[in-house]
This record gives sequence, structure tokens and C-alpha cells, in this order.
Amino acid sequence: MRTVTEHQTAVAELLRPRFEKRGAESVPLPQALHRLLAEDLRAPVALPPFDNSQMDGYAVRSAESGARLPALAAIAAGQQAALLPPGRTVPIMTGAMLPAGADAVVPVEAAQPARFVSAGESVLLPEAPAGQFVRRAGSDIAIGALAVAAGTRLGPAQLGLLGALGLGSVPVLRRITVAVLSTGDELAAPGEPLPPGRIYDANSTLLGSALSEAGATAVLLPTLPDDPAGLDAVLDGLTGVDLLISTGGISQGAFEVVKQGLAGMVGFHQVAMQPGGPQAIGSVRIGPPGEERTIPFLGFPGNPVSTLVSFEMFLRPLLAGPRNRLRARLSADAASPPGKHQIRRGLFAQETVQLLGGPGSHLLHAMAQANALVHLPLGVAELAAGEEVEVWLL
Amino acid sequence: MRTVTEHQTAVAELLRPRFEKRGAESVPLPQALHRLLAEDLRAPVALPPFDNSQMDGYAVRSAESGARLPALAAIAAGQQAALLPPGRTVPIMTGAMLPAGADAVVPVEAAQPARFVSAGESVLLPEAPAGQFVRRAGSDIAIGALAVAAGTRLGPAQLGLLGALGLGSVPVLRRITVAVLSTGDELAAPGEPLPPGRIYDANSTLLGSALSEAGATAVLLPTLPDDPAGLDAVLDGLTGVDLLISTGGISQGAFEVVKQGLAGMVGFHQVAMQPGGPQAIGSVRIGPPGEERTIPFLGFPGNPVSTLVSFEMFLRPLLAGPRNRLRARLSADAASPPGKHQIRRGLFAQETVQLLGGPGSHLLHAMAQANALVHLPLGVAELAAGEEVEVWLL
Repeated sequence: MRTVTEHQTAVAELLRPRFEKRGAESVPLPQALHRLLAEDLRAPVALPPFDNSQMDGYAVRSAESGARLPALAAIAAGQQAALLPPGRTVPIMTGAMLPAGADAVVPVEAAQPARFVSAGESVLLPEAPAGQFVRRAGSDIAIGALAVAAGTRLGPAQLGLLGALGLGSVPVLRRITVAVLSTGDELAAPGEPLPPGRIYDANSTLLGSALSEAGATAVLLPTLPDDPAGLDAVLDGLTGVDLLISTGGISQGAFEVVKQGLAGMVGFHQVAMQPGGPQAIGSVRIGPPGEERTIPFLGFPGNPVSTLVSFEMFLRPLLAGPRNRLRARLSADAASPPGKHQIRRGLFAQETVQLLGGPGSHLLHAMAQANALVHLPLGVAELAAGEEVEVWLL
Repeated sequence: MRTVTEHQTAVAELLRPRFEKRGAESVPLPQALHRLLAEDLRAPVALPPFDNSQMDGYAVRSAESGARLPALAAIAAGQQAALLPPGRTVPIMTGAMLPAGADAVVPVEAAQPARFVSAGESVLLPEAPAGQFVRRAGSDIAIGALAVAAGTRLGPAQLGLLGALGLGSVPVLRRITVAVLSTGDELAAPGEPLPPGRIYDANSTLLGSALSEAGATAVLLPTLPDDPAGLDAVLDGLTGVDLLISTGGISQGAFEVVKQGLAGMVGFHQVAMQPGGPQAIGSVRIGPPGEERTIPFLGFPGNPVSTLVSFEMFLRPLLAGPRNRLRARLSADAASPPGKHQIRRGLFAQETVQLLGGPGSHLLHAMAQANALVHLPLGVAELAAGEEVEVWLL
């Protein structure tokens, strides 16, 4: 039996070299949301690009403040400011370029009169130390400094920064394309009638949307009955994908289509984890004759909760980085098989986590109400209410 | 001066009635990721739909377990099981329908022999209590029970559940369409040359991507110079949007395009918040003559950090619900103007939060490195390292 860490390592060793070689593409800034930056981006301009005023007020030479000074015509944001002659002040708006010579700003409400005077009028300014209400050029970021690091997932703040730096497009990693294959004679497609003894396929939707959320492109294949020859046909027809994931068909039953179809090609393991114990990993040959290539393969167990937990434990960290992880207090006692790392579904709020549903891997309704995965690690058999556990926020 | 709560209430009162009347549309399940469910969905089938086996093993009448029993032909998942005659057992696969009469499953590894025997062979089964390794019909969710509540944001688990319930499409709220108008003579578009005294427009990208992330459709308008007549033309040309947001032009300067252009139509307030103190709120008339209608309007201040904080405090909760909120310990001392609710940017890890950059609203680079907003509430002037603060995870 493998530990979770051992299987995580195996998956990372299989996938990371492929993911790292995926290549990049340039996309316009507004379309780069949630993409991964392909290279370190350094600031091509400083931010702010020039010394500017933090307030609506009067720009002044600090050494001349504390006096009545005649004013020049106001400087609006966007104007190129000229030199401030000695013995003068100038109304300046927030964000406007500080004129050369000036080194401080007096807020308009601190002036007498407490308004913007016209050019030629005088205004009494209180003493202002050098640098007061001045945003120095480069005080946010200097030219050439690292703005956003390679691998960063681009959210609104990162994209806003890249916009402020003047970048109209941005190099991002190509999306990973993942084919999803739900297997089992028992599967019916959502929207179709449900014959007796059968269940609707949840895993295509579940994994497809989880992959999308993690930034990958999901290709949902038609569900595969328990027919190993059918699996061969699926592989032959597959092109343009970086990874194949199957669900179901890897356990100890008499009809395990993935296990039978890929015997000798991929490894089948028991991982010391609940749910999600059975796991398959390896490489498969895809594509029509003459255009074959080998891609990595992961086989997840068929129960939906097992599938999603497998995705969260083994694949999502490689696509989208780790989840936010916290310590939280259990709201009630909990038990776990000591030989397994148990992952429960929970509702986290106010530093406490409440387990939802039991450990059963078919409890999809409870999972749909959860906002966290709760980890009861290897070696733990019982935990009392109030004890701390690790939770991952979904 | 308004409190943050007062302005939040004003924004909610302005927008919530409009957002609630937005209407719904039906979308195929795989396209419903991150959409908001429009109505309560109840389970049209039970999950599981029928009693089924939790293990690969032997189905048995529990009263007859603890004996050697002749086996019938195996039941695979997906098959409709017939009655189990008294005095018999039957190999059954995980997920397969339990035959009528059977009420327990013995795992195959507990049988003697510990394998699936052929039909007609006998197998010795240990005693099995009623219900052992049986997933009862409806044990995940009963027919008619609430599966997903109206308003829920549909993630992989919720979509997986709806798939398991057989729903091929799902009613979701229409997306809110928001027009974004960055204002200021100083703005240059990313990708263009930067004249002296000017800065690149970050807010269109920033707000546009923040709106997309929150599930809205953003319409990025061309930036508007400080020309109130130009604002009229923008309003006249606007159609098909639910909300207009401007950035900049609402402060105390001499050239405040939004304040001048919308004077008398909308309210301009100081909110006791830093950054993001100046806020505008009201309604504006849009559309060409004869097709006019009134839509809500929010004016955010022009600094990018102020804009994003305004969005997070006032608009995002109404579009996408509250952020995950936690208590965390400050890694260092912090100061805040006691008359304002200060919102700083921070890096949260391991129950501790480190403030990034100062309070300045131009510090976009620091914000781009942050993963949390840190709240130093009204009335707080100084906090020591180790004291707890509220953080919102971004």
C-alpha cells in the first residue's frame, strides 16, 4: 500500500515535466484572467512614472512653505508640469505631475483661503516638510524590478498592475488539455431516461468543471461501457490532449474495464487514503496508427466523492497550486481508520469545521454542501470535538 | 461622513432590487460552472436510486449468512437484479443493484474461497449483520429533498450532484452586465506610448477582471477625458447594461469630471474608509433619445487600490457573496487612522498575516502580491504584532 505522499510524488514526477514543456502564448490583457504567467515580467516603466501629488492642494518648495506665496495656473492630472519658479506655489490635483523644484504638497483645506486661488492671487501655506503628500516616482515599483513572477495565476490585482505598467498583452502558459473518460456499464447520461439498475454519470461534469476551474481545458469523452476493446478504440481516436483521466474500473471487481484494458501498461495501486484508495497511474499510447504518441494517464475510482478527492489530492495542486490551508477545530468527535489518511467534507466557519455526511464515497449531496476538505491523517483513529485538524478551503 | 456599513446598505438598497429582477436562463450543465442557481432544485430521483453494494463481494440474506451457500451468476453494476432466492448467494460488484431479498454484502476477501465463484459453486460466508456494506436507496438524498438552494454558486461538487440527479441543464440567474468607465485626462491605454505626465489606465483591466471573476459581464468603455460633455455622450450611447461604474473624478479637485457631469443626479459622499473614502452613488439616465432608461450608478475613486477595495467592500458581496473571512495574527505592529476603517493588503499564511506595502492607494505592486484584505476597523489606532485582525481571503 502506498502513502498519499508517495502517490503525490509519483503523479508529480509523471506530469510535471510534461506540464513544464507545455509552451506559452500571448493573450490580450483582458483575456488573461486566471491564466498562469509564462515568464517573470519586469517593470518597463516605474510606478508612479513621475513624482506626483497625493492630494488636491498646492505644490511648494518645502523650504519656502509657512508663508504667503503667489500662485501659478493649476496643474491638472495628465499635464506635463514645468519648473516651479522660486517664491511661487501652484494648485495641483491628485495624481498630477509635481513640477520640478517643488518637493511638498499642502492639502487645499489647509491653505488660506482653503480653496484653489486663480493664477496671480496669493495663498498662505502652513509649513510642509519635504516629501509631504508626494508620491515619489518608483515608490510602488522601480523600472526593471520584478513585477509578477513566472507561474503566478493572474487575478484582477496582477492584471491591473500589468495594465498600469502599459502591457497590452501578456505571455501565459498554454492551457493543459485533459480528456475525461467515465467508465461503467451502469452509467446513463444526464438528461436521458434512467433504466433500472443504472445511475447518471456525475463524474464527467464533476471532473470537467473541476478541471476548468483549475485552468485546464476539459474534453469530455462519451462514457465507456465495461468493454476493454472499447477502451482501445477510445485511445486510438484520441488526439490533441496532454493527459487522459478515467474514472471507475480500477478496483477489485470482476468487471474492471480500465484494469483489464490497460493491464501491463499502467500501474494499479492501493493508496492509504479514504476515499480514493484505488489509483492507477502510467502512460498510454493514443492516436490513430502512424500518428501515435504517448501521454500520461491517471485512473481515479468511480465514486464521485472519490473522484473529486483524487483530483484535489493528486492533480489540482499541479494545475493550480495548493488550496488555502488552515487549522480548524472539529465541532464534534470524529473517527478515522488509523491505517488511512481520511479526507472528509466539511463546513468551515468561524475557525470551526463541522463534518458533513459520513465517510462514504457516494455522499455527493453532503459534498455539494461542503466548503472544505478535512484531513484526518494516517495514524489518527479518534479525534475529540475541539481538536484541531487541517482543512483545505474549496 | 458615512460609515462603511451605511454606504454598504445604500449600495445594497440601490442594486439588490435590480439584481433580484434580473431573470433566469437555462444552460447546459457543463456551461453552468460558477453561475448562480436561479431556483431551489429538488431531487427528481433518489441517490442512490436503488439499494446497492458498497463492496465487490457476495449479496446475501443476513439471516442466512454464516453458512456455505451456492452462488448464482454475478451481478455487475448497471444490471437490473432479480430476486435472490432463499438459500442462495450471488457475487455482486461495487455499485451494482442489490437483489430483492438480499440485505447484506460480504466482501469477497472475507469469503472462502476469497474469490468470485462461478454460478453453481458454493462459497462459505461469515456472519453479516443486516445492512452491512449496503448503500440504501436515498441515503445520499431522498426524492424531493432540496438538492441545491437558489442562489448557490455552482462549483464542481454542485454540478456533479446535479449531473448525478440526471439534470442535463440548469436554471441560472442571468449575468449582470456592468459598464466600466475609467476617467481622467491623465490616462493612456496599455500597449500605447506613454506621454510625459500621464499614466496607464489600470482600472479598466482591474475592474473588468474583478467583475468577470464575480460572475458579471464587464463592458469596458473607452477612457473618458476630464470633459463633462463627453460624459453626457457616453451616457447617451450606452445600452444593454444593468449598472455603470466610473473610476476617478469624484474627489475635491478642480477637474472632477464625474462630479461635474453628474452634479444633482447622484450623491457624492465621504465614507470613513481608507482607501476608497470618496464614493458616488445614484442613478443615471442612459440610452439615445426615445430609448432612455435609468440604471444604477456607482462612482469609485481613481487610484487602482481604492477602486479594487471599493469593489470588494460594496459591489462584490452583492454579485458573488462574501469572501472567506478569518481571524489572523498580525506579523508586525500596525497603525490606522482611528476615524476610518482601514483596509490593508496582506499575505496570509499559517494563521498569520503580514501587511504588504503601506496604506497608500497607489501601491498596486504590493496589492498584486497580496492574497488577503486586512481590516483595521473604525476606532482602532494601533495594533501590536500578534494581535488578531479580520482578513478576507482573495
